[in-house]
Amino acid sequence: MRRPAPAGKKGGKQRDQARSGLGRASGNADSRSAFSVRVGLVGATGYTGMELARLLAAHPFMSLTRATSRREEGRSLADLHPFLRGTAVGELPISAPDPEDLARACDLVFLAVPHGAAMPLAADLLRRGLRVLDLSADFRLRDRAVYERWYAMEHTEPGLLTEAVYGLPELHGAELAGARLTANPGCYPTGAILGLFPTLKNSIAGDTPPIIDAKSGVSGAGREAKVGSLFGEVSDNFKAYSLSTHRHTPEIEQELSRIAGRPVTVSFSPHLLPVNRGILSTIYVDLKRPNMPLRDIRTLYVEAYADHAFVRLLPEGALPDLRSVRGSMYCDIGLVKDERNGRLIIVTCIDNMCRGASGQAIAGANLMCGLPPAAGLGLIPLAP
Amino acid sequence: MRRPAPAGKKGGKQRDQARSGLGRASGNADSRSAFSVRVGLVGATGYTGMELARLLAAHPFMSLTRATSRREEGRSLADLHPFLRGTAVGELPISAPDPEDLARACDLVFLAVPHGAAMPLAADLLRRGLRVLDLSADFRLRDRAVYERWYAMEHTEPGLLTEAVYGLPELHGAELAGARLTANPGCYPTGAILGLFPTLKNSIAGDTPPIIDAKSGVSGAGREAKVGSLFGEVSDNFKAYSLSTHRHTPEIEQELSRIAGRPVTVSFSPHLLPVNRGILSTIYVDLKRPNMPLRDIRTLYVEAYADHAFVRLLPEGALPDLRSVRGSMYCDIGLVKDERNGRLIIVTCIDNMCRGASGQAIAGANLMCGLPPAAGLGLIPLAP
Amino acid sequence: MRRPAPAGKKGGKQRDQARSGLGRASGNADSRSAFSVRVGLVGATGYTGMELARLLAAHPFMSLTRATSRREEGRSLADLHPFLRGTAVGELPISAPDPEDLARACDLVFLAVPHGAAMPLAADLLRRGLRVLDLSADFRLRDRAVYERWYAMEHTEPGLLTEAVYGLPELHGAELAGARLTANPGCYPTGAILGLFPTLKNSIAGDTPPIIDAKSGVSGAGREAKVGSLFGEVSDNFKAYSLSTHRHTPEIEQELSRIAGRPVTVSFSPHLLPVNRGILSTIYVDLKRPNMPLRDIRTLYVEAYADHAFVRLLPEGALPDLRSVRGSMYCDIGLVKDERNGRLIIVTCIDNMCRGASGQAIAGANLMCGLPPAAGLGLIPLAP
Amino acid sequence: MRRPAPAGKKGGKQRDQARSGLGRASGNADSRSAFSVRVGLVGATGYTGMELARLLAAHPFMSLTRATSRREEGRSLADLHPFLRGTAVGELPISAPDPEDLARACDLVFLAVPHGAAMPLAADLLRRGLRVLDLSADFRLRDRAVYERWYAMEHTEPGLLTEAVYGLPELHGAELAGARLTANPGCYPTGAILGLFPTLKNSIAGDTPPIIDAKSGVSGAGREAKVGSLFGEVSDNFKAYSLSTHRHTPEIEQELSRIAGRPVTVSFSPHLLPVNRGILSTIYVDLKRPNMPLRDIRTLYVEAYADHAFVRLLPEGALPDLRSVRGSMYCDIGLVKDERNGRLIIVTCIDNMCRGASGQAIAGANLMCGLPPAAGLGLIPLAP
Repeated sequence: MRRPAPAGKKGGKQRDQARSGLGRASGNADSRSAFSVRVGLVGATGYTGMELARLLAAHPFMSLTRATSRREEGRSLADLHPFLRGTAVGELPISAPDPEDLARACDLVFLAVPHGAAMPLAADLLRRGLRVLDLSADFRLRDRAVYERWYAMEHTEPGLLTEAVYGLPELHGAELAGARLTANPGCYPTGAILGLFPTLKNSIAGDTPPIIDAKSGVSGAGREAKVGSLFGEVSDNFKAYSLSTHRHTPEIEQELSRIAGRPVTVSFSPHLLPVNRGILSTIYVDLKRPNMPLRDIRTLYVEAYADHAFVRLLPEGALPDLRSVRGSMYCDIGLVKDERNGRLIIVTCIDNMCRGASGQAIAGANLMCGLPPAAGLGLIPLAP
Repeated sequence: MRRPAPAGKKGGKQRDQARSGLGRASGNADSRSAFSVRVGLVGATGYTGMELARLLAAHPFMSLTRATSRREEGRSLADLHPFLRGTAVGELPISAPDPEDLARACDLVFLAVPHGAAMPLAADLLRRGLRVLDLSADFRLRDRAVYERWYAMEHTEPGLLTEAVYGLPELHGAELAGARLTANPGCYPTGAILGLFPTLKNSIAGDTPPIIDAKSGVSGAGREAKVGSLFGEVSDNFKAYSLSTHRHTPEIEQELSRIAGRPVTVSFSPHLLPVNRGILSTIYVDLKRPNMPLRDIRTLYVEAYADHAFVRLLPEGALPDLRSVRGSMYCDIGLVKDERNGRLIIVTCIDNMCRGASGQAIAGANLMCGLPPAAGLGLIPLAP
Repeated sequence: MRRPAPAGKKGGKQRDQARSGLGRASGNADSRSAFSVRVGLVGATGYTGMELARLLAAHPFMSLTRATSRREEGRSLADLHPFLRGTAVGELPISAPDPEDLARACDLVFLAVPHGAAMPLAADLLRRGLRVLDLSADFRLRDRAVYERWYAMEHTEPGLLTEAVYGLPELHGAELAGARLTANPGCYPTGAILGLFPTLKNSIAGDTPPIIDAKSGVSGAGREAKVGSLFGEVSDNFKAYSLSTHRHTPEIEQELSRIAGRPVTVSFSPHLLPVNRGILSTIYVDLKRPNMPLRDIRTLYVEAYADHAFVRLLPEGALPDLRSVRGSMYCDIGLVKDERNGRLIIVTCIDNMCRGASGQAIAGANLMCGLPPAAGLGLIPLAP
Repeated sequence: MRRPAPAGKKGGKQRDQARSGLGRASGNADSRSAFSVRVGLVGATGYTGMELARLLAAHPFMSLTRATSRREEGRSLADLHPFLRGTAVGELPISAPDPEDLARACDLVFLAVPHGAAMPLAADLLRRGLRVLDLSADFRLRDRAVYERWYAMEHTEPGLLTEAVYGLPELHGAELAGARLTANPGCYPTGAILGLFPTLKNSIAGDTPPIIDAKSGVSGAGREAKVGSLFGEVSDNFKAYSLSTHRHTPEIEQELSRIAGRPVTVSFSPHLLPVNRGILSTIYVDLKRPNMPLRDIRTLYVEAYADHAFVRLLPEGALPDLRSVRGSMYCDIGLVKDERNGRLIIVTCIDNMCRGASGQAIAGANLMCGLPPAAGLGLIPLAP
């Protein structure tokens, strides 16, 4: 892997002119790749693939050298995703996925394919010496039996389950540094775990299982043609689904149990919002000490995230909203005490496509490759 | 009050032709009023006023004789709300509110004005012998002190608090029959109370205070010009607000306590959805007997609503969505058992403008006036 | 065909109680069918099928006796479309389409199937003595060659093309009375033709071909699972499509030419709106006499629609919007004169699912069966 | 004015870490301002102010030193616009507008205030030696009489009208270099002029006045509390407004006439889309030579924008959509020939907040200050 030179922003500067100048530049591709980690994207057509392409188009130290899709082979990324026209990434031709070719052209590969499909491909690419960042669920659950029960499918690479690092950068940054295989967290688990981490770490919750009432934008359902995802079905509508049976439940419980140092179960209730991006989670925790002051609880959150700029604890009285994190890596957290019932209510917001999938994947890949953790992720939210 | 003649549908038939015929009819106004309860609408400009006008335009036994708004005096209802063009209701000129004039022209008056403004007006109209259906919060709370604490305002008509009937037809149909003053339930309380009624009535809940995680469309915030209700602030966005402090909390607790026969507190968490109409409430109840089978719980709901066609208990495994109740009186209920945590999850959907406000007001007024309870409310939901 | 008895509204009244009463009624199905036209719906799963079911659920003189879908056979209509739960129509079991069975059970059949599929089925049902209202494009174009060129498909029933009546009730009401086969107009043509009719009828347009810049909600694209109709692709987005090549172009030109008595071509430009229902058409006509006063033009529109209550000419200065016609049969028309350029700008709004498809089909069927033309169509728009 | 040092990206790099790092940095504000143009923002509360803040938060060579709003004085920018939390720009306290203070703290000031209010302020700031980029309409029309007729207001600074440069960078880049006062183009004119420029420049249009049928997102109506901009009025709705009377008409005609070298009038028809950002304009031009091949027309567009990377001419057969330009400076153009009517149809898309307002303002300011024209504008569109 070629490491970025100290003067790495030069590449960024040239790209800036080429991509967006009122005049047109040329020849910057070569100079840029000199400092770049070469990355591949397997699964370019879905929403996570689109979002990875968006982020890689502006990444100062990563160069997208392969984008694959069996169905769209031969078209350019910009033909597929017209918002990429005029960018260097957009000109990349889409190829069929081929591990040998990926091994030649890439240092690290992002897998944006369905669960089940990622397993064998990850194993193959690792054997060829690549690093792998898997955005599917295949390596998130450490217990093979739990995976097989919730995903109704045999796990064919159980040997990799212990090696895979759960790629939540605030919690596992050290393990991610230099990792070969990273399991990118699910979208719902990201917002739920970041919201509960300080509470469980500090053992202030009582015995009642927490409730995570989560509401997600539609992009979380993927870009496949399904009646249930049609505009006519989702727009001006709202519903709950998969209550108590959603596959992100064991992932959330696994991570919360690790944090708490004891088995934690939750009631996890997903809902489908008529928005494109974003997850808001309203989390209910019965406090061990019902009279614990909100101020003391806030202190635990301040301390937990003091060194993590992507987590923004809102001022007392403020609550997060989806648009304030749209397109960015931020996880916004608001805290409310229901004094009459001795309950803590934690509200978190993330962009499910960026923080909850592709942006978090970039953060993980940055750490795996020794790049600055926030490289390419200085994203200002788009509002409105 | 003139009572509808037995052949009352004749009025409806004539209206049908006049309003919607490919040819134009005339002269039906007189014949119709012969069988009609004469009603007035105080507060024609807001969303509840709009919705009342929509429902009254198709009501077989009510005739809208006055619609008032100080600001819009002199315009017709259709000038203000163009969807009403071509209807008899739309031709009604808007007048300034005047109790004396209302007393002459109406048998019953709907008050669609802010809380605080309804109190004195209701008292005045009652003294003049009218029936009053108040859509504000002024007569919902039986305890004057509770009202004054949550609404930060003196209650000037405390004597009417015990007389006012809480207008949820499924629970208080008998009291509504012939009532002089009805307090129309709030939108959030309607969905919450109907969802919890069989559970609390049958004492199957444990001691943990229920959680009501509710998500409402924007029409619930009214039609006043506020930055927070702008399309640019609400669209493609989602947020929680007033957690644990919303004014519907004491109303919900008052009614739940009456049902349970003991003091009940709740955690009530409203959220703002980017849709026009609809409230979905996800309600969490820790069961007294964690192993109680879902089938037994469903039986309690079937029994509770056997005689109430506007409440639809969905089949096991089905969950409600907003569009399936849009524009209608239905309250859809789905039940899920979280077996691992011994929790009952109740999901209810209503249209906040129709069932949660103006439609429920019509139902109450029907009962107050001795009309068929469902008159004018045979509304098929509009989907998509 | 059994004709409705004079006291037909009795059926409606009983249905009202059964469907929407706070108490539950029973046994009304029999009494109702005594006065009803028995209708069948072939193609129950799509948006036009859904909308027909909605309208038939409230129709006083039509009784839905069959609803077919090969894919959904065995489920009830309410299982498929949960908004229908609790209605008599919702309890109807979906059957596979079978002409013999349809002939036994129905007087008239609505065909809500794709073009190409309607042709042979219509012919078969007509042979069996049924009346047929076809919502597809198969019988709209009188010239077989034009059909075959634009739809790239052989027309297998050319003999029916001259018999089929183009079902725009304002223009062809007399032909529709008693017709055996009606071609329901396309959604775009409905708004375009109603907007241009008085102008072309009275020959006030110059030689420049009119421009119809039309914007439609997504339901017009149908309910099939297509990536292009996903919420994630349509929401917060807008685009033009099929400019100058849309299949509704020859239909519009055929009808405008009939009205004008000379060949008329148009530039027809459809666009996709992020809304469920509605088409707004902005139509540009260069006037033969550039100085013709707007007042004179308005007079032509008033006269043209004097006897047609579903067309609402807005007051001078007012322009229509989609929500004011949502769920209804109204076609709202606003007229503007661009004085500096001698141009007439006609803006029309319809609900593409109701007026532009299923509602218009009901109007046509009413006329075919000798029912009151507006029966079941007294629909107040739902706003917001 | 302090000019950026050659190693200017160093500031950008440090900011990247500070703003978005997983760890927190500090002390970068000083080092950054060393290479920065100091800019002020008058009018921080509206949508153009919000968007300017978003863009300035990521600009490598501009430093926001003042943000003013009389109403919000004392709060920070992030208090007002929570998406800015955690950025350096977000920490800026809002001050009351004070020309003397602005002159001390800024090199250039962006005026994001209503028309009428910008005039005197611009004059004052220019006298104090500042550069001024005015986003209002006050300096767009060169003919004082035209301004006063369309805006119904006296122009108090007519002497500045000839000096002000119309800030469309593709057309007036040379004049913008070093300009003191720039009039930022209106949102609608930007899309209309860029779409028509090659056609009028090359005189291929016939005599019929072009039609510009434009559809805009709601942010174009500003962030003031108005009933007409409420979610409940705009969502699931669509309408035309101000047909032939919109104030952007004379601005469009002024610029098109300059390009064509002869007086050009247009029919300009704005519509209100239920989306936040974006304008799509469908433009109709009757060709001088009806048989002119589309290929030849495309060549003119390729040549006109060869040196302008922010204008993307789509491949033949492709049409633009709003989301592909969301959040960016791109103007996408699609061309269609209506062969039967000898008409050219030009479809353009821009983001009205970025390209149509604040982004274009940054481009103009870059040119005024001698910065790289595309500095801070390398924005990848956000889709979906």
